[in-house]
Amino acid sequence: MNILNTTISNIQAPDLNFYRAARERLRNQARPSGSLGMLEDIAARMAGIFGTLDVRLNNKAIVTCAGDHGVCAEGVSLFSSEVTYQMVHNFVNGGASINVLGRHAGARVYVADFGVNRDFEPDLPIFHKKVNKGTKNFAKGPAMTRNEAIQSIESGIEVFRELQIQKAVDILGTGDMGIGNTTPSTAIIAVYSKMKVAELAGRGTGIDDEGLEKKIRVIETGLELNRPDPDDPIDILSKVGGFEIGGLCGLVLGAAASGIPVVCDGLISTAGALLACEIAPPAVKYLFASHNSYEIGHRFMLKHLGLEPLLDMKLRLGEGTGSALAMEIIDAATRALCEIKTFDEVAIKDEQ
Amino acid sequence: MNILNTTISNIQAPDLNFYRAARERLRNQARPSGSLGMLEDIAARMAGIFGTLDVRLNNKAIVTCAGDHGVCAEGVSLFSSEVTYQMVHNFVNGGASINVLGRHAGARVYVADFGVNRDFEPDLPIFHKKVNKGTKNFAKGPAMTRNEAIQSIESGIEVFRELQIQKAVDILGTGDMGIGNTTPSTAIIAVYSKMKVAELAGRGTGIDDEGLEKKIRVIETGLELNRPDPDDPIDILSKVGGFEIGGLCGLVLGAAASGIPVVCDGLISTAGALLACEIAPPAVKYLFASHNSYEIGHRFMLKHLGLEPLLDMKLRLGEGTGSALAMEIIDAATRALCEIKTFDEVAIKDEQ
Repeated sequence: MNILNTTISNIQAPDLNFYRAARERLRNQARPSGSLGMLEDIAARMAGIFGTLDVRLNNKAIVTCAGDHGVCAEGVSLFSSEVTYQMVHNFVNGGASINVLGRHAGARVYVADFGVNRDFEPDLPIFHKKVNKGTKNFAKGPAMTRNEAIQSIESGIEVFRELQIQKAVDILGTGDMGIGNTTPSTAIIAVYSKMKVAELAGRGTGIDDEGLEKKIRVIETGLELNRPDPDDPIDILSKVGGFEIGGLCGLVLGAAASGIPVVCDGLISTAGALLACEIAPPAVKYLFASHNSYEIGHRFMLKHLGLEPLLDMKLRLGEGTGSALAMEIIDAATRALCEIKTFDEVAIKDEQ
Repeated sequence: MNILNTTISNIQAPDLNFYRAARERLRNQARPSGSLGMLEDIAARMAGIFGTLDVRLNNKAIVTCAGDHGVCAEGVSLFSSEVTYQMVHNFVNGGASINVLGRHAGARVYVADFGVNRDFEPDLPIFHKKVNKGTKNFAKGPAMTRNEAIQSIESGIEVFRELQIQKAVDILGTGDMGIGNTTPSTAIIAVYSKMKVAELAGRGTGIDDEGLEKKIRVIETGLELNRPDPDDPIDILSKVGGFEIGGLCGLVLGAAASGIPVVCDGLISTAGALLACEIAPPAVKYLFASHNSYEIGHRFMLKHLGLEPLLDMKLRLGEGTGSALAMEIIDAATRALCEIKTFDEVAIKDEQ
């Protein structure tokens, strides 16, 4: 708990003075006031986070967090758990979706294993943070122990620290890979939203009506059996969560403690971020929601966190693909704040 | 009419075989089918347009089209027409919003004068295509003659041709600068939508309730007085349009005739694109809508054209700023199609 507690206590709210100075500059730029819409909100938040109007995102990093899920034994996914292991190799080889979109965004893409159910070669260039080989089936008991839940979060914090040691990180994108992981994510959302599982559950990788019914029953069973405490994020993570969800939570905490913004991807990354913000509420000030996932439960989380998604392109892939796309928009917003001249600077009289 | 007619006859539908091959590859990529949402639609359309699955957007160009509007005499804008002239210099000097966002997107930004009401120095590095020094006030009579309307469209076609002579263009973004130009754009939309002007008109650069009332009355007056023929796009342009709107129309026609995709910006650019697609319906196959403008009439046009906007970020600036942001997404989509490996390529068994 030492790493976790220290990290939580290091998370401080961004600088309101720079936020306000950014708003002032945006208002004075030679264009109609407010005309850059959400770009202005992003730019002002980034100025507050970095304490400057000239934010430079030279070092973008995306961490794709992998883990397996015992609940897959219930048949909640179209794909077998084996695919998680295979996809980790695909990430390392650079041929997966996140590699392509990460490259396009100028971001380095890293992979972290928090709980894939097969061993990796120790020299595979990933963050080796395996807590256990897959969670237990939460339809039969808790997904993991409380200690494992804490370990997964602290491992996420460590990944962020190790990233920073390797090279500066100016913005972090989070992403996930874990066959079956919309099921634990939806369970977490159900705890917080108090909505019916049937109103929250989506089709994940593309299950049919029958599969969806099964998924809903499995989540309901898991919640009834394990009774996660809505006031204890770590209890929720341990009862119905996942190792990579703990890792995603830790990454948000680690970045926020270092004053670095985090762009979270879709359902699973946002579930990790939600836990982080329940553990340490000021962390939300460092958080950007990359997109509006096609998954239903995602909307509840964004509303709960008070975040407006940057994109709405019917993405439902994960891996950090939404984060990669959104990073380009955030980068553009910082340039807009810094480089668009004011009416005074270009000597145009503002008639307003 | 010679340039216009030749251009129209050169516009051909993109290659359906490459569109289908792209869909096939996207389906086989190592990720859940359909999980990249709108990126997949974009990528497949681009493959059809270019006749290859490996589309490279090395040469991005944005043309910001400037013109002035006699209808400003009615007080429909917060800014004076003088600002159009000043902003053209701001564009040339690189300090305006479109310069910043264009740079970020890796696009060259050009400015074309189709009808600013002051003369520019002949050596100013812009496209000098002035049809006339501002349109006439359409609340008192037609905005321009029919010949001027045709000239403005043909000038837009010429700008695209001259761009291509200077350097290859792989994708064109359109943008506008013209104080008061949401008023003619809304008039054009009113003709096509047959909706009430009061249901279409927006606040442009930010006019108040009284200003909005005035704008609605002015457009209603212009439509009653000039009676543009809904079946004749050139008549509409001449009666209630603008020179830069004609130029924007011509740019779309010129690009489509060369098989080059066009990303259009918000209300004004889309009004120009709408006229282009009314003149030559296959042009729509080359068109991408960058964003959902805050302006109400914009939604009608996108629906009418059958285009889904890529972004929805409450932008209402113009200049091509939405086009610049959307180009980065389109570029990412083309990389996704080409570079994300298939299940076969990475030897992962697709369980679907």
